[in-house]
Amino acid sequence: MEQKRDIDELTRLVVEGGDQEILSFLKILHPADIADLLESLDDSGRRRLLELMDHQTAADVISEVEDPYLEDMVKRLRIDELSKIVGDMDSDDAADLLSELSDEEVRAVLAILDAEDVAEIGELMRHPEDTAGGIMQAELVALKASSTVSQAIDEIRAQADEVRKIHNIYVVDDSEKLVGVASLRELILADPNSILDSVMTKNVIKARVDMDQEEVADQFRRYDLVSLPVEDVNGKLVGRVTVDDIVDVLDEEADEDFLKMAGSVEEEVLSSFGKSVRARFPWLLASWIGMLITSVLIGKFLDSSEKLILFVPFLPLILGMGGNVGGQSATVVVRGIATGKLDARRMWQVAYKEMGVGFALGAIYGLLLGVCALFLGQGPNMMALIVGLSLTIQLAIAATSGVLLPIIFHRLNTDPALATAPFITTIMDIVGATLYFSMALIVIGRS
Amino acid sequence: MEQKRDIDELTRLVVEGGDQEILSFLKILHPADIADLLESLDDSGRRRLLELMDHQTAADVISEVEDPYLEDMVKRLRIDELSKIVGDMDSDDAADLLSELSDEEVRAVLAILDAEDVAEIGELMRHPEDTAGGIMQAELVALKASSTVSQAIDEIRAQADEVRKIHNIYVVDDSEKLVGVASLRELILADPNSILDSVMTKNVIKARVDMDQEEVADQFRRYDLVSLPVEDVNGKLVGRVTVDDIVDVLDEEADEDFLKMAGSVEEEVLSSFGKSVRARFPWLLASWIGMLITSVLIGKFLDSSEKLILFVPFLPLILGMGGNVGGQSATVVVRGIATGKLDARRMWQVAYKEMGVGFALGAIYGLLLGVCALFLGQGPNMMALIVGLSLTIQLAIAATSGVLLPIIFHRLNTDPALATAPFITTIMDIVGATLYFSMALIVIGRS
Repeated sequence: MEQKRDIDELTRLVVEGGDQEILSFLKILHPADIADLLESLDDSGRRRLLELMDHQTAADVISEVEDPYLEDMVKRLRIDELSKIVGDMDSDDAADLLSELSDEEVRAVLAILDAEDVAEIGELMRHPEDTAGGIMQAELVALKASSTVSQAIDEIRAQADEVRKIHNIYVVDDSEKLVGVASLRELILADPNSILDSVMTKNVIKARVDMDQEEVADQFRRYDLVSLPVEDVNGKLVGRVTVDDIVDVLDEEADEDFLKMAGSVEEEVLSSFGKSVRARFPWLLASWIGMLITSVLIGKFLDSSEKLILFVPFLPLILGMGGNVGGQSATVVVRGIATGKLDARRMWQVAYKEMGVGFALGAIYGLLLGVCALFLGQGPNMMALIVGLSLTIQLAIAATSGVLLPIIFHRLNTDPALATAPFITTIMDIVGATLYFSMALIVIGRS
Repeated sequence: MEQKRDIDELTRLVVEGGDQEILSFLKILHPADIADLLESLDDSGRRRLLELMDHQTAADVISEVEDPYLEDMVKRLRIDELSKIVGDMDSDDAADLLSELSDEEVRAVLAILDAEDVAEIGELMRHPEDTAGGIMQAELVALKASSTVSQAIDEIRAQADEVRKIHNIYVVDDSEKLVGVASLRELILADPNSILDSVMTKNVIKARVDMDQEEVADQFRRYDLVSLPVEDVNGKLVGRVTVDDIVDVLDEEADEDFLKMAGSVEEEVLSSFGKSVRARFPWLLASWIGMLITSVLIGKFLDSSEKLILFVPFLPLILGMGGNVGGQSATVVVRGIATGKLDARRMWQVAYKEMGVGFALGAIYGLLLGVCALFLGQGPNMMALIVGLSLTIQLAIAATSGVLLPIIFHRLNTDPALATAPFITTIMDIVGATLYFSMALIVIGRS
């Protein structure tokens, strides 16, 4: 709330206020809040603000600007302004920013930077976005095991401008391989003259550059980490991932799973029109083909007996409830697999429970529907029984498929979040229509 | 992989190995890995391991044990063992553990603890689980603004046993109100004789005990925090939330949203049978009522003209595709609202895009279905046109409802993740059946 008021006030200042007034106001705001403000300003307001800020502040603010706005802002800055800002950014944010530019522009920006920055940023840009290498930053403090604690503190001081967020220092051997880690707390508690070898933790949790970001997030989740050192394929320490980036990874991975469950690949909340259509098309096609098969099946049933028309009104309900209950079980299993809560040990325990839940819900709703059909339906009295029984069996099958399909896809190394839903609706449509109409045909034959 | 092998090896040791062999093996394992092992052992194995470990290790390990196992393990420990372990735990983990016990057992455990621990744990247990107060820990280092940096470092050293994870120290005034924060990095870089007032950041980001955990997570996400101080309703500093707990909150909140979208409240991946049935019943009821209304509607339409039966086979497809496309748009909006990516500014931009996507997908699949109907359908030739056109309109309406419903529920302060889905399927069923059959009746009248 307070931040919201600050932002309204600054919006006013940018239009009417003097430079000093704006600068003293910016001082009390967090870069994330300034970034928010920038996003909501028009081009001239953004220019004024960015020109007023010193490079370090501009670098911090631009690191916080979100994707669709970032591209726009970056394209409006002059190459020399951009170079100064990039030079003051953490290497991971700098690499992200440069990935918004053309190859030519990147070369122009890097040409003005000093050699060390260029090497660091170039190294980071080589790694795919969704790996440890793609989310790590190159800035870190590393020393030899024979260094003393007070030498380590001197080194942190020497690198204070470069390495701004630091929770751990790393200890490396002569070939730059990681041999230990020490937290700032351990350094503070230790005797300044003791050597790092006696202070550091030797059993270091680490990642390789090509580790998938989801697996990196699992390490943070499991071991309650604040940062994680990253080594290249030869075991050389090349960077570290910090927990603030992991928070973003967790959001991103959950976003992805949400959209996948709803039938959309490679899409983000803020994707463009064309990307959204392309992302949703294949899944809808799979589901559409399944429903088309069901249509043909229903047509064949209706051809076989005219009296089946009396049963038609309840058909969408039986198919739809099957999809709902199957979807619920599938969600529990898919999400459990994604977060690692459902390991092999608990998988069958949950599977049995889900089948029981489906049967219980089937019995309840089957009974309810049977009673309703008795009053609403126009068919033979046996119709109520058929309708109720079909729904019960349908929901039991739905929960079972909802559990088994994601487990099977997981075993087959197919992403269960993506593959499960269209299969379930197709199976439940075909099973439901066949079950319901077959039972109906038996009754019609008798009555 | 390596951890997996360690765990297999220790499983063997617990059965055949000597005490010393087990202890030296435990030393190289992280408490999270030992917790995993404990979960997979039988009762006698668990007992043996817990008795072998010192209290501090046991406390660290039990803090990592997950819910369904925690209750079981805790109930098998003697009260005096439990008290010693609880005394060595961080206050937030201790409060979580005690919440598994009966009031009587809690009193028995607390009776053996020292007064400070009892006060801290008692304070934490008063707060609802999903608030800042429910996830904070009481352990922190706080000093006055007039203290020097070297006094702060002495204080960190003095509390080393109590406050084990520390990234920031807090600065309070005489009435224990928070006035500043300093990171360990800032303490290391500062002159040891300078006073905290000159080192600390005065514009502190903080939470109140009753802040919802989702909002707390938003603060971490927005400001890239490692820990966040918590004050009580009078502004007194009472605890801090650390980022490792926020990682759990993010998982938990995403779990909740996943299950809500699938139509389940108050459920977790590992919920019991009864809880799952109860959690899913209300949403299914809402959806079931909607479908029952559709059934009655379909019955009325079929009564009005016998020829409508020719159109029946494609009905489930038109209703089902509406549900799919509406669900996709709803997922984008619900998730965008949950993560804060869709603020008021971007809402309409995304809304227009989604409607366009719905129309485009509608046009594509409408055309495809029209062509199929031409070959598959047995009705008049105009039928292909009706089927195709109905699907096009249905999908455009579906995307529009998928966008608007969650926005409306959000404005009404109703949880869009929970309310949206049953409404969308109901609307799409009623709209789809009415649209399709009404258009069909016009053609039948003509032909």
